[in-house]
Amino acid sequence: MPQVGIIMGSTSDLPIMQEAIDILAGFDIETEVDIVSAHRTPEKLFEYGKTAHERGIKVIIAGAGGAAHLPGMVASLSPLPVIGVPVKSRNSIDGWDSVLSILQMPGGVPVATVALDGAKNAGILAAQIIGASDKCVLDKILVYKEGLKQKVIEGAKAVKK
Amino acid sequence: MPQVGIIMGSTSDLPIMQEAIDILAGFDIETEVDIVSAHRTPEKLFEYGKTAHERGIKVIIAGAGGAAHLPGMVASLSPLPVIGVPVKSRNSIDGWDSVLSILQMPGGVPVATVALDGAKNAGILAAQIIGASDKCVLDKILVYKEGLKQKVIEGAKAVKK
Amino acid sequence: MPQVGIIMGSTSDLPIMQEAIDILAGFDIETEVDIVSAHRTPEKLFEYGKTAHERGIKVIIAGAGGAAHLPGMVASLSPLPVIGVPVKSRNSIDGWDSVLSILQMPGGVPVATVALDGAKNAGILAAQIIGASDKCVLDKILVYKEGLKQKVIEGAKAVKK
Amino acid sequence: MPQVGIIMGSTSDLPIMQEAIDILAGFDIETEVDIVSAHRTPEKLFEYGKTAHERGIKVIIAGAGGAAHLPGMVASLSPLPVIGVPVKSRNSIDGWDSVLSILQMPGGVPVATVALDGAKNAGILAAQIIGASDKCVLDKILVYKEGLKQKVIEGAKAVKK
Amino acid sequence: MPQVGIIMGSTSDLPIMQEAIDILAGFDIETEVDIVSAHRTPEKLFEYGKTAHERGIKVIIAGAGGAAHLPGMVASLSPLPVIGVPVKSRNSIDGWDSVLSILQMPGGVPVATVALDGAKNAGILAAQIIGASDKCVLDKILVYKEGLKQKVIEGAKAVKK
Amino acid sequence: MPQVGIIMGSTSDLPIMQEAIDILAGFDIETEVDIVSAHRTPEKLFEYGKTAHERGIKVIIAGAGGAAHLPGMVASLSPLPVIGVPVKSRNSIDGWDSVLSILQMPGGVPVATVALDGAKNAGILAAQIIGASDKCVLDKILVYKEGLKQKVIEGAKAVKK
Amino acid sequence: MPQVGIIMGSTSDLPIMQEAIDILAGFDIETEVDIVSAHRTPEKLFEYGKTAHERGIKVIIAGAGGAAHLPGMVASLSPLPVIGVPVKSRNSIDGWDSVLSILQMPGGVPVATVALDGAKNAGILAAQIIGASDKCVLDKILVYKEGLKQKVIEGAKAVKK
Amino acid sequence: MPQVGIIMGSTSDLPIMQEAIDILAGFDIETEVDIVSAHRTPEKLFEYGKTAHERGIKVIIAGAGGAAHLPGMVASLSPLPVIGVPVKSRNSIDGWDSVLSILQMPGGVPVATVALDGAKNAGILAAQIIGASDKCVLDKILVYKEGLKQKVIEGAKAVKK
Repeated sequence: MPQVGIIMGSTSDLPIMQEAIDILAGFDIETEVDIVSAHRTPEKLFEYGKTAHERGIKVIIAGAGGAAHLPGMVASLSPLPVIGVPVKSRNSIDGWDSVLSILQMPGGVPVATVALDGAKNAGILAAQIIGASDKCVLDKILVYKEGLKQKVIEGAKAVKK
Repeated sequence: MPQVGIIMGSTSDLPIMQEAIDILAGFDIETEVDIVSAHRTPEKLFEYGKTAHERGIKVIIAGAGGAAHLPGMVASLSPLPVIGVPVKSRNSIDGWDSVLSILQMPGGVPVATVALDGAKNAGILAAQIIGASDKCVLDKILVYKEGLKQKVIEGAKAVKK
Repeated sequence: MPQVGIIMGSTSDLPIMQEAIDILAGFDIETEVDIVSAHRTPEKLFEYGKTAHERGIKVIIAGAGGAAHLPGMVASLSPLPVIGVPVKSRNSIDGWDSVLSILQMPGGVPVATVALDGAKNAGILAAQIIGASDKCVLDKILVYKEGLKQKVIEGAKAVKK
Repeated sequence: MPQVGIIMGSTSDLPIMQEAIDILAGFDIETEVDIVSAHRTPEKLFEYGKTAHERGIKVIIAGAGGAAHLPGMVASLSPLPVIGVPVKSRNSIDGWDSVLSILQMPGGVPVATVALDGAKNAGILAAQIIGASDKCVLDKILVYKEGLKQKVIEGAKAVKK
Repeated sequence: MPQVGIIMGSTSDLPIMQEAIDILAGFDIETEVDIVSAHRTPEKLFEYGKTAHERGIKVIIAGAGGAAHLPGMVASLSPLPVIGVPVKSRNSIDGWDSVLSILQMPGGVPVATVALDGAKNAGILAAQIIGASDKCVLDKILVYKEGLKQKVIEGAKAVKK
Repeated sequence: MPQVGIIMGSTSDLPIMQEAIDILAGFDIETEVDIVSAHRTPEKLFEYGKTAHERGIKVIIAGAGGAAHLPGMVASLSPLPVIGVPVKSRNSIDGWDSVLSILQMPGGVPVATVALDGAKNAGILAAQIIGASDKCVLDKILVYKEGLKQKVIEGAKAVKK
Repeated sequence: MPQVGIIMGSTSDLPIMQEAIDILAGFDIETEVDIVSAHRTPEKLFEYGKTAHERGIKVIIAGAGGAAHLPGMVASLSPLPVIGVPVKSRNSIDGWDSVLSILQMPGGVPVATVALDGAKNAGILAAQIIGASDKCVLDKILVYKEGLKQKVIEGAKAVKK
Repeated sequence: MPQVGIIMGSTSDLPIMQEAIDILAGFDIETEVDIVSAHRTPEKLFEYGKTAHERGIKVIIAGAGGAAHLPGMVASLSPLPVIGVPVKSRNSIDGWDSVLSILQMPGGVPVATVALDGAKNAGILAAQIIGASDKCVLDKILVYKEGLKQKVIEGAKAVKK
């Protein structure tokens, strides 16, 4: 049963959002992926937001660009933690529109915003959220962080040569 | 029967949005005013957006601050022209968040955005939209514009003295 | 008889503005297209702004880049609703100049601003404005929105495979 | 035993961060509060980040202003989900420094960023994270969201009068 | 006969623009002052721009705020050098709108832009432009610059005490 | 004898600044061109600024990028009108650094700033400054503006076909 | 003999720059303070920059606002390390002008830029530069940093009560 | 024995940071180069910051991109002067994130920030800091500055031909 729902406003967001899918696969966390557009399929958004927690989803990752309303609207509809990925879409004003329309949510309805095009970190954050009450996943996070460290240390060795 | 629906995300937006109500009253255009929060009352937003045109509303004015999703979401749900008023709310990053999350809508779902805190202009624009096919309102716009001119000319006289 | 006047400051804006022409053609709304430069042909701008509504034009779409004065100046001269398209021109500071010089109009003279390079949305908005009092066009908008939805649903199917 | 660790870079951040403390108290979630400065007490930061998950903390909320390194550094040290609150400190450049230095974390080390001065939302997000695997807390979130809705509906009634 | 025409979009700009009037009076350069609104009195703008050089005006100073079209439009209409003063008006987005809509003029139609609210410098620049071919005014500029220097030197003495 | 001095901080600015040289050649206004770096040849800057008006120069055009101090420093040293061209150099932060470090001069020392990379407009502005007291140059400006108009009218014809 | 030269563009910068004077006094490092305006006293700037290192000055701290050329120009003239303090002056565009015109120096002429209004940090940095080859000062820095830590620890105690 | 420690957050920063290495080599100042990631190797950062001054390092140059915490954190840990190089990394929001998260350090812990991607200037600044108490290095700086001047003068000659 998938624990993380990954949605995005358009298929054009998939190349960015794929990084979230892949990193969660690496943590052996099952995901479901869907296209849900706040502006073009509002009924589907409604249905998705209202029911995700009932289907066993624990965390939602939502990516969108421009005036990016998908993360905030699904956060409005769902009691689950929602991670927002600002995508730098074509015609974006350098990504500022995506970032601000996801980050600056009003009091009462948070979106856990990650960096511009930061889908990989969205996936890691979802794993950390699950790991907060799942010792097995927490241990995988610790291993993952150790791996990050080793890669830097190897890079440092290469530079010193 | 009201022709313009004026909605806003919070009662705290009312002091700004009142200017839209007042200017439309000056054009003898009936309005209905409501609080509809995209993030706190998504069902009401849905109902409002889906039905406004069936109740005879011709133009919707939506004001919101911060990550302002109300104008874009109602534009998603309604076939009517939607005018968005970016409100500079408390905690706003100088209004940029409101402006960009209303203006930068994706292709397919426009919001007619006016200036930051520009509710008065939203009202005038709504009148112009009605005036596009109502000669009587168009004439009132022409009179209004003449009035703007006279005020500048009087100001100029005062300065020259 | 054309219902929507589409003007732009320079022939270099045409590739962007063509999207407004095309989408309106799709709604069977007749347009007239012209180059009117606020800074290089101010007399033509004057003539255009003063007379558009007398020739049966109902909505004006004006696109311009940089210090973009065309939309605001035609809004100054005409009682019609004016839709402004900020064009990201060469030498633009990331589009901010076009956006702000169209959006931030003073009280009394609104411009209905759409997203950076958002000519397609300008066309849809013009159709919605006409549709506000033309049931036939309103129905076409509803069909168009249904088409947007279907495209997302098909995209979602492809992603799920 | 506290489930949420709330830390901030300076006692001057407390008035903002208090909102996180209060809202979590409202959800009956125990918190521990501490001042940990990335720049002035790096050893304490180290100790805190390395051990929080061993003491039963499930989520860390970190608030800081200016070049705000506390949330990112504690995320570097801890396997737990870290929520970052950008605080608009004195001498801040309109809050942009706090926002960007918390949000734009590199791949591998996410910080769940909330809005500028958005400590209340940080608290709610922490509750949602706990609620992801605690049905009782999830239900409280649902009740809280219902409360938000009722307040808007009452506001709407007042406006309509 | 006035040599410098000083215009502004609104009487509310006068407190700022007064600095230009005063400094030019100090250089014994005669000015004429008028309110000309690009958006509310476009006919007056036209008349002004087309005729200023015929009445003996040598330089035009134009101040405006928000989507500030006055300086650019008068530069479109007049062959004279036009100095633009971006005024930080109420509802301005921190002055960026005024600055960009005056500065970023397209090729062919320059506006000599000075700092935000920099009307004093606009006056000095007008004097320098006249001084470019009027030895007497050039000498006054040299004296003025000497005065600036003396004031700093006195300030330095006070600080050293 | 050259009437306009054109200086720039680096030979890498020449491709941009060439437009000022060319347009002034088109107005038959003699120019002198030099490389003067505020940061690398401060003595030459001093000499240049102090003596330009004594050599018959009437207007100085100074182009520079990044933290662009050349226009402001030459304005500090010379009583002549100085036109500043913000050049978008390599490593520039989107041109903002050049624009702001030229535009935002303190009271007393103006720089007539033109658009980012707007060397052509700097040349036209220099011609207008000379034209302010030289009827022959003023007439050329009028002819030039007529030429701009004709080009737009021809473009309009092409679009209408 | 003073080791640190502290200069600023205007007496109005003194309240900010005083923090640099005070903190250096606390480290028993002698300073000399002067007003040197790049734009109003360029000769004094020249003299200052050319001779400071000959008088035994080891570090220069320069504070200025708006189009802040003082730090960069003194760095152009002196071989010494120059610390630039961007001052948020009246009429500044939120401090961005000061920051960018100090920070974005071209290759070859660095300015060590500190935070907006960060004169205190400029003083500490000057002490650290001296401490780089003066063990006694280095030890004072270590003591100072220990003091910062203690203050946070006391703040933490107060919060925990 | 190396006098300057050059560290960076990732091997991907090396192409930029190489300029600091090269320019210091040109001044015959020995450097040591290492990869130290604040977010991935916090223990190494700790060790590095705590001990650099004990190993004879006099200045630290730290380059990082995005939410760039390395310069500030090493400044937190070391009593030495730390020069921060904001690197414009992939996914950066035009470099603003790197710049602000390095520049806007809180009172007590300065970072000497140079321009975006300004590693060359970081190297020169490090040399100047050493030169502040090393006459031999100071003389090399003077020679270097003379070289900058000659290159401009040659460029000027080429332009004049």
